[in-house]
Amino acid sequence: MITVYCIIVIFFICSAGHAKYLPKNSEICQQVLGNELLSEISSYKNVKEEIFKYVTEGNFKGKTYNELAKFVDKFGARPSGSEILEDSIDYMIQLTRDEGINDISTEELEVPHWVRGNEVITMLKPRVKNIDLLGLGRSVSTPEDGITAEVIVFSNFEKLEATPIDDIKGKIVLYDPPFTTYGETVIYRLRGATKAAEKGALAALVRSITPFSINSPHTGSQTYDGNITKIPTAAITLEDTDLIRRLYNRGETVVLNIKMSSSYDTKISRNTIIDLKGIEKPEKLVIVSGHIDSWDVGQGAMDDGGGLFISWAAPVILKNMNLRPKRTIRSIFWTAEELGLIGAYAYEEKHRNESSNINFIMESDEGTFAPLGLAVAGNQEARCIIGEILNLFTSVNASTLVEDDSPGSDINIIIQTGVPGASLHNANERYFWFHHTAGDTMNVEDLKELDLCAAFWTAVAYIIADLSVDIPRYIK
Amino acid sequence: MITVYCIIVIFFICSAGHAKYLPKNSEICQQVLGNELLSEISSYKNVKEEIFKYVTEGNFKGKTYNELAKFVDKFGARPSGSEILEDSIDYMIQLTRDEGINDISTEELEVPHWVRGNEVITMLKPRVKNIDLLGLGRSVSTPEDGITAEVIVFSNFEKLEATPIDDIKGKIVLYDPPFTTYGETVIYRLRGATKAAEKGALAALVRSITPFSINSPHTGSQTYDGNITKIPTAAITLEDTDLIRRLYNRGETVVLNIKMSSSYDTKISRNTIIDLKGIEKPEKLVIVSGHIDSWDVGQGAMDDGGGLFISWAAPVILKNMNLRPKRTIRSIFWTAEELGLIGAYAYEEKHRNESSNINFIMESDEGTFAPLGLAVAGNQEARCIIGEILNLFTSVNASTLVEDDSPGSDINIIIQTGVPGASLHNANERYFWFHHTAGDTMNVEDLKELDLCAAFWTAVAYIIADLSVDIPRYIK
Repeated sequence: MITVYCIIVIFFICSAGHAKYLPKNSEICQQVLGNELLSEISSYKNVKEEIFKYVTEGNFKGKTYNELAKFVDKFGARPSGSEILEDSIDYMIQLTRDEGINDISTEELEVPHWVRGNEVITMLKPRVKNIDLLGLGRSVSTPEDGITAEVIVFSNFEKLEATPIDDIKGKIVLYDPPFTTYGETVIYRLRGATKAAEKGALAALVRSITPFSINSPHTGSQTYDGNITKIPTAAITLEDTDLIRRLYNRGETVVLNIKMSSSYDTKISRNTIIDLKGIEKPEKLVIVSGHIDSWDVGQGAMDDGGGLFISWAAPVILKNMNLRPKRTIRSIFWTAEELGLIGAYAYEEKHRNESSNINFIMESDEGTFAPLGLAVAGNQEARCIIGEILNLFTSVNASTLVEDDSPGSDINIIIQTGVPGASLHNANERYFWFHHTAGDTMNVEDLKELDLCAAFWTAVAYIIADLSVDIPRYIK
Repeated sequence: MITVYCIIVIFFICSAGHAKYLPKNSEICQQVLGNELLSEISSYKNVKEEIFKYVTEGNFKGKTYNELAKFVDKFGARPSGSEILEDSIDYMIQLTRDEGINDISTEELEVPHWVRGNEVITMLKPRVKNIDLLGLGRSVSTPEDGITAEVIVFSNFEKLEATPIDDIKGKIVLYDPPFTTYGETVIYRLRGATKAAEKGALAALVRSITPFSINSPHTGSQTYDGNITKIPTAAITLEDTDLIRRLYNRGETVVLNIKMSSSYDTKISRNTIIDLKGIEKPEKLVIVSGHIDSWDVGQGAMDDGGGLFISWAAPVILKNMNLRPKRTIRSIFWTAEELGLIGAYAYEEKHRNESSNINFIMESDEGTFAPLGLAVAGNQEARCIIGEILNLFTSVNASTLVEDDSPGSDINIIIQTGVPGASLHNANERYFWFHHTAGDTMNVEDLKELDLCAAFWTAVAYIIADLSVDIPRYIK
């Protein structure tokens, strides 16, 4: 199971790099969209403006930010399998009930429960220095006295493969790939331990997957292949990686002592499902979503508190505004995303036979900075309709359609079954600076940007859910 | 003595905010500079270009960065009073001798030796959370079990002053001033403990003095007033400060346990003086300088490794190029800057009676990013001459003259006695992101920018040292 997750995740992340922007008013779209549909879509301009007014100037102004702050300040990090995560799920349910929405259900599933213990790395040679680290998800512990060994540095897997086992055996492998894109670089975090263990390494370290650092280690998921010895694995900072590489390249022997402890079992968690029932086709779903679990450092405000709260806000805003679309707006709070999209896999499996009812599925899990548009998966006709809807958001600079066959994280599992969907495209240039660090806190979030995201997310979902036509799955 | 340092430091930092840019080709300068001097200055164009060619394309290319990297990688942080600092001074002396420069002397002085021990802050209420911190220089220790108390938050000293002692007594004061400029904000780090102790607080915490953070605490100096109880004091991150303030503003009782230990005594350290003797007026000095000590976190690569190495490079480059100016180029590596400009005070006192020989004094201690020009203290005539010299650097975008009556850190002590001087004006918008953090490493430095800084620094010093006229101290 775990291997399967990993491959899909890698596929998603890599393919995200190849997203294209759909040319506006393309000839294809002019053919696909008849005058009637064009006219219908443009008729939503007023409702879109009402939603923006209510969220950015009216009673909802600042509410997304303030509720998110109260939530993350109360619970902090919400790792998969923790009691805190379950308490935070209960809190979100109550928060939703407090808004007068009671069509709420939860679905239980088994989730990984990896708990970080003490983690210390000390450089012993050529001089004594503390090396900041964050163990990677599922990493095994070291012996109590730690692992003391020489470091060997590789900038890619090809160089590791080309090196004789005897040169690696008994050493600590450090991967120092320069950051290019997340998709290209994260494979060293995901697969580094297994690849190093195959060569007899005692532990594997990886340069944190980020373009920028203030000595900030970035944790994240990794998986062990079944047959290979499980070795301890952690991310260290750009700064310490580059220091070790410079020493190593000067011919110095670098010796580290790595002490890491952790525990691993499974627990029961829940996906949370909130429905604002459609008035004409309640069985048809437009899903908005984010994940409620986070890494165990920081507050999980950016990853994915922002996505969680704009998806919580969508049905609340529509209910408060007495806007009931034809189809049902379903808000899902995925659980246990960080350790392998566990909640999303469970949902897809459980709801597979109703999958044809999903008209469109959306997730925000790449930041809630200023909204720019959507990254859309679907056939050409679907993208033309979504593109035309996005044209309504030109005045708020959120009309860009990025063609992306694998948008989102959790929702990509459902999208790969043929369901059209989208993730929030936003001004997230600094996203990976904070991603999976102790710096993922409310300080990354901005009240006005969250209002814009909530308004955009709600308006898009409403329009799609209310259109006379379904978002098509195949070219007609 | 300590109080005196502090007042001067505050003065310097605050006044830096009022620097002005000198209008180019001002009428005043046209009157001050006669045709002969204008022509003389413009004749240095060729030598300036030769220096840039040698440093950015020739044999010296990359040398400043690479030598800095070897230095900071070997020693790491070099705090005042440490053996590492003394070893690093010996290393710099040998590095200079290896370049064939032997006119080197050191001057001993007593310096503070404050050593950070274990530091842990735990938020106990409203929930348990680790709070990252860095104790401030000279902070006393807490009792072994720490100080457990409620937090009271102040955004400025006025609000602290206006609060009855009974509301503060027995509590932990947290200052959360929003970052505006370093000069305006740093007073809460420098004076926060004393002000809080006057009101009976048990400890004082301050929001790190930075506009940006990835959960990064920033250490720095502070001083206790003689008659006030010395209370433990530390900086915490923007993120944790803002979390505590939000909780506090919601009416929650925030309780912290602060455990800090440290030791404090004095040691002997040295200022290092390297002379490239002038051929006509060897007694006249143009001083280039940086400080060799650093805070005890990070590598001190930016603060002030870069300034140290471009000031080391200046005489080396001139010697290698067989360029001997009329006056002596003196390179000074100040010691113990971080705990109150201790080395610079000692130098000024020891050399007071030769002060009239200092023609111009320069320091780089605000980053060695792309050079933009100089921040210059001096009378109008002095600024006109320096401004005209800077016009030679238009092609490398380093011709800006910032009027600054208190440039630099160490050198400001001598400048306040009437000596004209300047600090490096550079593209240091991100300087305070890394300042006094574990992120002050080689990753902040850039090979090409360091080459440009070294070339600029050397060429400016050479031209000033070789001019037919002294830089004037008073309006004629």
